[in-house]
Amino acid sequence: MSHGVVPVMDALGKAAVAAAQELAQAPTQRKNQALAAAAAAIRAQASLILAANERDLAAAQAQQQSAARLDRLRLTAQRIEAIAASVEAVAALPDPIGRVLEEWRRPNGLLIQRVAVPLGVIGIIYESRPNVTADAGALCLKSGNAVILRCGSDSRHSSAALHECLVAGLAAAALPPQCIQLVPTAERAAVGHMLSGMTQYIDVLVPRGGRSLVERVQKEARVPVIGHLEGNCHVYVDRDAQLDMACAVALNAKMRRTGICGAAETLLVDRACAATHLGPLLRRLLDAGCEVRGDREAQQADPRVQPASEADWYTEYLDAIIAARVVDGVDAAIAHIARYGSAHTEAIVTDNAATAERFLTRVDSAIVLHNASTQFADGGEFGMGAEIGISTDRFHARGPVGVAQLTSYKYVVRGSGQLRP
Amino acid sequence: MSHGVVPVMDALGKAAVAAAQELAQAPTQRKNQALAAAAAAIRAQASLILAANERDLAAAQAQQQSAARLDRLRLTAQRIEAIAASVEAVAALPDPIGRVLEEWRRPNGLLIQRVAVPLGVIGIIYESRPNVTADAGALCLKSGNAVILRCGSDSRHSSAALHECLVAGLAAAALPPQCIQLVPTAERAAVGHMLSGMTQYIDVLVPRGGRSLVERVQKEARVPVIGHLEGNCHVYVDRDAQLDMACAVALNAKMRRTGICGAAETLLVDRACAATHLGPLLRRLLDAGCEVRGDREAQQADPRVQPASEADWYTEYLDAIIAARVVDGVDAAIAHIARYGSAHTEAIVTDNAATAERFLTRVDSAIVLHNASTQFADGGEFGMGAEIGISTDRFHARGPVGVAQLTSYKYVVRGSGQLRP
Repeated sequence: MSHGVVPVMDALGKAAVAAAQELAQAPTQRKNQALAAAAAAIRAQASLILAANERDLAAAQAQQQSAARLDRLRLTAQRIEAIAASVEAVAALPDPIGRVLEEWRRPNGLLIQRVAVPLGVIGIIYESRPNVTADAGALCLKSGNAVILRCGSDSRHSSAALHECLVAGLAAAALPPQCIQLVPTAERAAVGHMLSGMTQYIDVLVPRGGRSLVERVQKEARVPVIGHLEGNCHVYVDRDAQLDMACAVALNAKMRRTGICGAAETLLVDRACAATHLGPLLRRLLDAGCEVRGDREAQQADPRVQPASEADWYTEYLDAIIAARVVDGVDAAIAHIARYGSAHTEAIVTDNAATAERFLTRVDSAIVLHNASTQFADGGEFGMGAEIGISTDRFHARGPVGVAQLTSYKYVVRGSGQLRP
Repeated sequence: MSHGVVPVMDALGKAAVAAAQELAQAPTQRKNQALAAAAAAIRAQASLILAANERDLAAAQAQQQSAARLDRLRLTAQRIEAIAASVEAVAALPDPIGRVLEEWRRPNGLLIQRVAVPLGVIGIIYESRPNVTADAGALCLKSGNAVILRCGSDSRHSSAALHECLVAGLAAAALPPQCIQLVPTAERAAVGHMLSGMTQYIDVLVPRGGRSLVERVQKEARVPVIGHLEGNCHVYVDRDAQLDMACAVALNAKMRRTGICGAAETLLVDRACAATHLGPLLRRLLDAGCEVRGDREAQQADPRVQPASEADWYTEYLDAIIAARVVDGVDAAIAHIARYGSAHTEAIVTDNAATAERFLTRVDSAIVLHNASTQFADGGEFGMGAEIGISTDRFHARGPVGVAQLTSYKYVVRGSGQLRP
């Protein structure tokens, strides 16, 4: 552990705790004012942000980073406008803080309310996408949480420029600048200290990035983590499925966007309808440019199908590739998903209500869908507004994590002198 | 790490995961049938349970354990009846599993439901009270979670006898005996393995015991923990408090039962009413046999008051002792609680609605009360039925942890062929 990092990080932590206490009491209008001013600053500073992004891109190119990574890192005037718009979208969300989640009166007259409060201080560790700086900062501010942002070193100039706009927004609303702090050092030791050395300052950690980052955070963190691992999502086409709906859902679930965590990675087809449905399903996917890796039945149904290995059933391709196999009915589909899936999102296509209920009840995933595309696995599509990720954990938050999932609660009890007997 | 423990514990873990999958689908009636049969078995086996308890007591006496510890360990016919009755009380609770927590329809016609599901496998690590075996086993069963119980070695015969009754209940309802497992070894290494070596089997850990146990679990656990540390609870008597209500609330909050976590440990009195309220408040407590450790004003108000040290403001006495001081109004009370409190439960006594709202909003504790005793900090008093503890964490569960807090949720989405644009 480098000497310089610890005092710097502890100072951030202390300042975040103090800011969180003030932010927890901030009225909705002040938080929204800060977000509106931040969005305006992002638009006004677009040229400075682009210049900062050029420095990051030049450094990344000098390191010969992959084209995909450069694309994640790159900002354009259009992407900056989208970032500003998403900050405004967060401002437009209902305030999750102060909501009365439940209320009941006891026989002794006590009125008990469960009221939403912020979690406190959230630490966010992310990789190359600089937009996370604005998205995560806005979501934490709206939910009344102070945030410590640790961006990937390759996006540090872009993230710093965006962070300045968020701080300008806080100033415009007379909120403490420490509500949204960016770790000022690129030293790797800062991450380790956030994971295990700041338990008295950080209430929750959110990793945003690849599997190795999320796994490291979940393994080393000494505070609670909201993390999401991969989305190895399944579409099961049941014997009672309409062929046209099955083809449309499977194609949309796989090919609409192949790089998102809700994209389907495995197609399961009921043996009882394989003769009629398997061929057309595979043809639609193959004709759309999707590579199919299948079991023997799938290979027999279309000569373009490649043989699937055991590893394929576990794989999140995030690409125009799908694994496909025949299963003996809904229970075999449920068993396949339990064995190979990642408990993220699975869909069944069937007109049989009983079969659908069996699938929806017995598949233990964050999101289960009947006659709909797995690509609806998204906070925006759920009507929750922007999301910070989709949790595959069971604890605290499962599925899309929006502002409401970034809250805790307290019990407020009102009496008239009640004593406990 | 002793060689024998790991395979034994891993076998428990594997069996628990399999049992949890079956239990998650069990209908309410089967779970209640198992609990009713377990309660009947506890009554029928009372003499065997008492005999087992005698063995534990003899061993504890041979180790010259404290009277308090022996009392926690001791079972009587009356205590066994209370244990059976509490298992029946859990059976009478509404089933938390399968409840639709939220439901909404999207403009595209998708119906989205958030449905409560079990957490999975819960590990419970506790100390000498053998009744925890039945209480925790019943709460986990009702909430559809498989549980691995690790009792204190000094209660192992009593806990094993109670565990047999729970397993008999499971058998009567044709539920897997592995739904409720008791760690069969007293080796200390079993605890360490539950904390860090069983992440693939255990979803949540619940420590039940003293501060050292809870702190060890929170420090070493590699899975989420529902823990509660101490309850350093405060009663603040405001300038607008009725004296008689203030005296009654303070006396009940401190003296009704001094050993529970909701017992008041510090009395704060507004300087603006100290002349009229401080003396009578202290007198009521002192006359009831409570030791008072106070600041200068408190010592001047009653000669029986001992001087308080800085450490007293931090102390959870769990005894007939209270710290008392004068503060400059509600904001000073809020500041004292923020500095010295444990964020468990605090009460304000006042007839001023605005002052009460300020206290209820700004005191960041799991439970805040207006004109009521802190001793209402209890799942039963909240109407939640039995509780496994009171969480002072902010993540997942805060305040009383009953069956509803031992659940996760999933999103069930019903469509008619919707595709994502």
